[in-house]
Amino acid sequence: MEMNKKGILTVVSGFSGAGKGTLMKELLKKYDGYMLSISATTRKPREGEVDGREYFFKQTEEFEKMIQDGQFIEYANYVGNYYGTPKAYVDEQLAKGKDVILEIEIQGALKVKERFPDTLLLFVTPPAADELERRLAGRGTEDEKTIRNRLCRAYEEAEGVEEYDYLLINDKLEECVDMMHNIIQSEHYRTSRNIELIKNIREELKCFSEGE
Amino acid sequence: MEMNKKGILTVVSGFSGAGKGTLMKELLKKYDGYMLSISATTRKPREGEVDGREYFFKQTEEFEKMIQDGQFIEYANYVGNYYGTPKAYVDEQLAKGKDVILEIEIQGALKVKERFPDTLLLFVTPPAADELERRLAGRGTEDEKTIRNRLCRAYEEAEGVEEYDYLLINDKLEECVDMMHNIIQSEHYRTSRNIELIKNIREELKCFSEGE
Repeated sequence: MEMNKKGILTVVSGFSGAGKGTLMKELLKKYDGYMLSISATTRKPREGEVDGREYFFKQTEEFEKMIQDGQFIEYANYVGNYYGTPKAYVDEQLAKGKDVILEIEIQGALKVKERFPDTLLLFVTPPAADELERRLAGRGTEDEKTIRNRLCRAYEEAEGVEEYDYLLINDKLEECVDMMHNIIQSEHYRTSRNIELIKNIREELKCFSEGE
Repeated sequence: MEMNKKGILTVVSGFSGAGKGTLMKELLKKYDGYMLSISATTRKPREGEVDGREYFFKQTEEFEKMIQDGQFIEYANYVGNYYGTPKAYVDEQLAKGKDVILEIEIQGALKVKERFPDTLLLFVTPPAADELERRLAGRGTEDEKTIRNRLCRAYEEAEGVEEYDYLLINDKLEECVDMMHNIIQSEHYRTSRNIELIKNIREELKCFSEGE
């Protein structure tokens, strides 16, 4: 008798500048058993991008057909291009026991959790807002106005954070990677994910106590 | 700005024969930051037992006064002696940032969770019921009828397991100790335990976005 071996879908959100990308990359480098979800998109492939690796590249018509057929966990449209998470790919990985990591923004994440309550929501934040400003400025690609706009949006984003399951403060990267791993692995032991196992143990005990 | 440093009260229950005692002992040996809760009792100290180490030894009158004053997290009476968990001692350890481990049976555990919803409930089980029977028999101190009675009680006990937060299958002790540690440490990052931190981050972002 064993724990439920099914993978867990983890949605990662966080302030831009919180270091989500690096965190996820390091998690996959350091630990086995994780997969990044691959998005479908209608935007054209860039040089070096491979279908099924960076994205599943789709024609608009095909993408809209998939929307109608309910084939996306979530999707959105940015500047005329569709981006979405195909359910089939994620389900396949979860069934194999892979823990699938999906990075989307907060509103999308809350919708995913609503449709799939088993989803684990992680919110990544830098230790403090001034650190966030420092990191955004440190990229050197954005002027002050853009940074202020980002922080303003961050404030609005933080609106739904209370509904996330865990908060990850990305202060020291290595520690944060380990903690992300521990959180996801601990979740496998949640009682609510192992109802079948509990039922089995009770059934066995029942036989014993009835003297079979 | 930091995570909530307050300790977590973890209540451990499980089938007799599941190895709870060894598990807790090994956890404390291997990792820092944990404390076992010390019970108060009205039974007489046995040779070698020290007040405030094995138990807080109390007179019946004193114990009943403490009950009336609501000074116990939970208490029970077994064969004429009171046993209870003094709230003051636990609160003191939690405030110091210690994660306090308390071993009680399932009905008491559910009552603690009801009164203190922040409590983490862990249920320890052997990998399968026949393993449980083997372990109970292996103690060599109990005849078949006693074992059957125990299993029968185990079946009844398993009634409330669904309400526990996590299920720990004590198959390999070392792995189980590590998993128990990871589960408790992950809990520190629960959003619901860090509402204050989230509020602070939002306040800071608000200042930035208002251009202060």
